[in-house]
Amino acid sequence: MASEDQVRSQCCFLEWMNLQEQELAELHQALNIHAATNSKENINLTQLAENCIKHFQDYADKRTQLARHDVSAFFAPAWCTNFENSLLWVAGCRPSQYIRLVYTLHGLEIEAQLIQFLEGIGDIKNLGELSSKQIHEINSLQGKTIRAEEKVTTRMAILQEDAADNPIVVIVMKELREVGEMNGKVERALDKHEQDMVGVLEEADRLRLTTLKELLAILTPRQAMGFLAASKQLHLCVHEWGKMRDFRHGRGNHNNLS
Amino acid sequence: MASEDQVRSQCCFLEWMNLQEQELAELHQALNIHAATNSKENINLTQLAENCIKHFQDYADKRTQLARHDVSAFFAPAWCTNFENSLLWVAGCRPSQYIRLVYTLHGLEIEAQLIQFLEGIGDIKNLGELSSKQIHEINSLQGKTIRAEEKVTTRMAILQEDAADNPIVVIVMKELREVGEMNGKVERALDKHEQDMVGVLEEADRLRLTTLKELLAILTPRQAMGFLAASKQLHLCVHEWGKMRDFRHGRGNHNNLS
Repeated sequence: MASEDQVRSQCCFLEWMNLQEQELAELHQALNIHAATNSKENINLTQLAENCIKHFQDYADKRTQLARHDVSAFFAPAWCTNFENSLLWVAGCRPSQYIRLVYTLHGLEIEAQLIQFLEGIGDIKNLGELSSKQIHEINSLQGKTIRAEEKVTTRMAILQEDAADNPIVVIVMKELREVGEMNGKVERALDKHEQDMVGVLEEADRLRLTTLKELLAILTPRQAMGFLAASKQLHLCVHEWGKMRDFRHGRGNHNNLS
Repeated sequence: MASEDQVRSQCCFLEWMNLQEQELAELHQALNIHAATNSKENINLTQLAENCIKHFQDYADKRTQLARHDVSAFFAPAWCTNFENSLLWVAGCRPSQYIRLVYTLHGLEIEAQLIQFLEGIGDIKNLGELSSKQIHEINSLQGKTIRAEEKVTTRMAILQEDAADNPIVVIVMKELREVGEMNGKVERALDKHEQDMVGVLEEADRLRLTTLKELLAILTPRQAMGFLAASKQLHLCVHEWGKMRDFRHGRGNHNNLS
């Protein structure tokens, strides 16, 4: 039986995944209308992108609130599949993955393959060509993002190494009569460690969000739609593939809250 | 109900944790005898350290075999506590944690506290003073280990970013009729990804093992015993504390295989 905390965190994740499906459908619909009417009007597209960012911000805020009760659960969530968990960086995706995806979509081979694809079922995922100015800006964002990621990774490493330092080691060596005994000092040391972990989680979420915002600001509204649709489609696929692989390895239904 | 793969992996971990308890008891016993007889004979101590390394090697080999069937499970193991999982680096501890622990044990403050402690219940965990030659060698090992860790971290990051690249993105954008559909190409791409993950896991285990061996070679047999005992005691405490915290958050018994 899952605890109340776990049910709340799992609900938060499932609502988020449902929202991803809805957003993906809306993005496809808007892109289809845009392509059919050959509209020069980007207002709707811009609004959709802003909604996606707003939802992401809301999700991050809600997650931070939940993490304040039980942060460790977010670093290897029981509600995600093992495949998803093996791709986790500080309880989420790597911000540099967004940029990698833009490059992949822009790649010549993919473009050539997309042409075939687009002939088949419509121009819904084409990123369109990036200008040299855009490529320059994306390159610069990539460098900045990787450096920021490294800083967060280092902060996480320091936090992990602290488990082999004061005050935890002093308590283990000096104050406990037997292995695994718990006392007030252990509680306080673990609470402090968890608070620090919430701080790293918040920093990672902030980096994911700002990277996404800056990337969308570089892309045209039409390109932003193509990228967001591809990103959500990839995310949903990874989740579904993970469920299939877990099922094959005899692991249960991740949407089951019991 | 856990799958056969999961039961085997969980058994492997539980056997390993039981072995840690046994080894800790043996280390304490040997150190007590050594202190009581004021023995200059280090043969038994050296043999004990060699046994610990041999057991670690056996565990790593067994884990690699199991990971070839289901590698993702090792990156956020259901059989570990959430607290342990939040400390994981590539499915285990950071090798630099060993060195950090030696420094912590050697630290002046801890030494001062140890004196009090040792007056109380005997000289069983004292690391003894490190010579300046030893400190120089440990410093150098620390630098080498952190650089090697960074290489493995980068390899892991590249593998995670590859999920937003060819061939996975091409399959998602081009070949699937609906989100989450599975086909032969997806299977092959995920199999390849998992093989690469096993490679990173093996590299991380190799680094953990060589760091431990090199560190023990720098320490005297008596110091090595003190370090190994402290390391196992810390590991067992983290596991027990994690179980208590999980229990408080309503999560089940990690030793239950059902």
